[in-house]
Amino acid sequence: MKSIAVDMDGVLADVYRQFLEMHFQDTGEKISPEAIRGLKEAEAFPLLKKHVHSPGFFENAPLIPGAQDSLKKISAHYKLFIVSAATEFPLSLYEKHRWLNKHFPFIHWRQMVFCGSKEIIKTDIMIDDHFKNLDHFSGETYLFSQPHNETTSPGKHVRVSSWKELEKLLLPDPDKLEQ
Amino acid sequence: MKSIAVDMDGVLADVYRQFLEMHFQDTGEKISPEAIRGLKEAEAFPLLKKHVHSPGFFENAPLIPGAQDSLKKISAHYKLFIVSAATEFPLSLYEKHRWLNKHFPFIHWRQMVFCGSKEIIKTDIMIDDHFKNLDHFSGETYLFSQPHNETTSPGKHVRVSSWKELEKLLLPDPDKLEQ
Repeated sequence: MKSIAVDMDGVLADVYRQFLEMHFQDTGEKISPEAIRGLKEAEAFPLLKKHVHSPGFFENAPLIPGAQDSLKKISAHYKLFIVSAATEFPLSLYEKHRWLNKHFPFIHWRQMVFCGSKEIIKTDIMIDDHFKNLDHFSGETYLFSQPHNETTSPGKHVRVSSWKELEKLLLPDPDKLEQ
Repeated sequence: MKSIAVDMDGVLADVYRQFLEMHFQDTGEKISPEAIRGLKEAEAFPLLKKHVHSPGFFENAPLIPGAQDSLKKISAHYKLFIVSAATEFPLSLYEKHRWLNKHFPFIHWRQMVFCGSKEIIKTDIMIDDHFKNLDHFSGETYLFSQPHNETTSPGKHVRVSSWKELEKLLLPDPDKLEQ
């Protein structure tokens, strides 16, 4: 059984929706998704630092559509690990743990990894929205599309735009036929 | 520069001293270190589950003698990561982060990993007190002596009983001469 490392922010948790919403609450200004294509997250959201340090930011993040259902199916065929960069934001550690337990009750604490750099992660496959995590990884790599990476060529990584796409790429034929 | 994964509990943090002290506070009974040689931690400390879930257990754990000084020296010669099994105890995540910042201010958040299983950790060297973490690891392995592992043969791992011993094994000659 192959092992797979799945990122949280931007892959399971819809942090863009959370940023857009919190920016609107703070400023009354609606940021257009089109306007932030290709911008780094910190460029797109000038209040990012404040928001990621706000209690509840990670715990109340909405889900990326389809993530729950697809990850459940994928976990039947792969040794699944959730690998999230979290040590930069100490508050996020507890919140991310709670968020995973709430939305993905089938994921055991043994399958959770909260780290800073992902360079010491060894799995067969990695799914992430950041080049910095995928570029030095030696296994198969899937780049999950988010506005900050959309205008850059995926290079050696396979770009995917949804969990449905990932299902098609990762699940064996019988599961594809089920859909 | 070789990379090294260093465990926290039983290697940097003296959880045995913490267990002995908390057991005494709760029961008035002094457990003799001799009486618990070879016992698993949960066998040695019947109140273990209660204590590891108590706020402050990890944050107030004393240091293993020499850990600060040796790790500082070692970090000049290795790419250092602290890899701690922590996701079983959600409270410990924040406490361990604070404990590291307090006692090892030279360790950056990028070097911290809080996980459940260590099977997806890829470094050149691992230092740990638990066989379950070392046995499946493919690099060099050092077994840090603790009462729970003392009566078992280290097998393919190099047993060490102190940070001074680790310094001798890991640091280049000039550092050895400095001492």
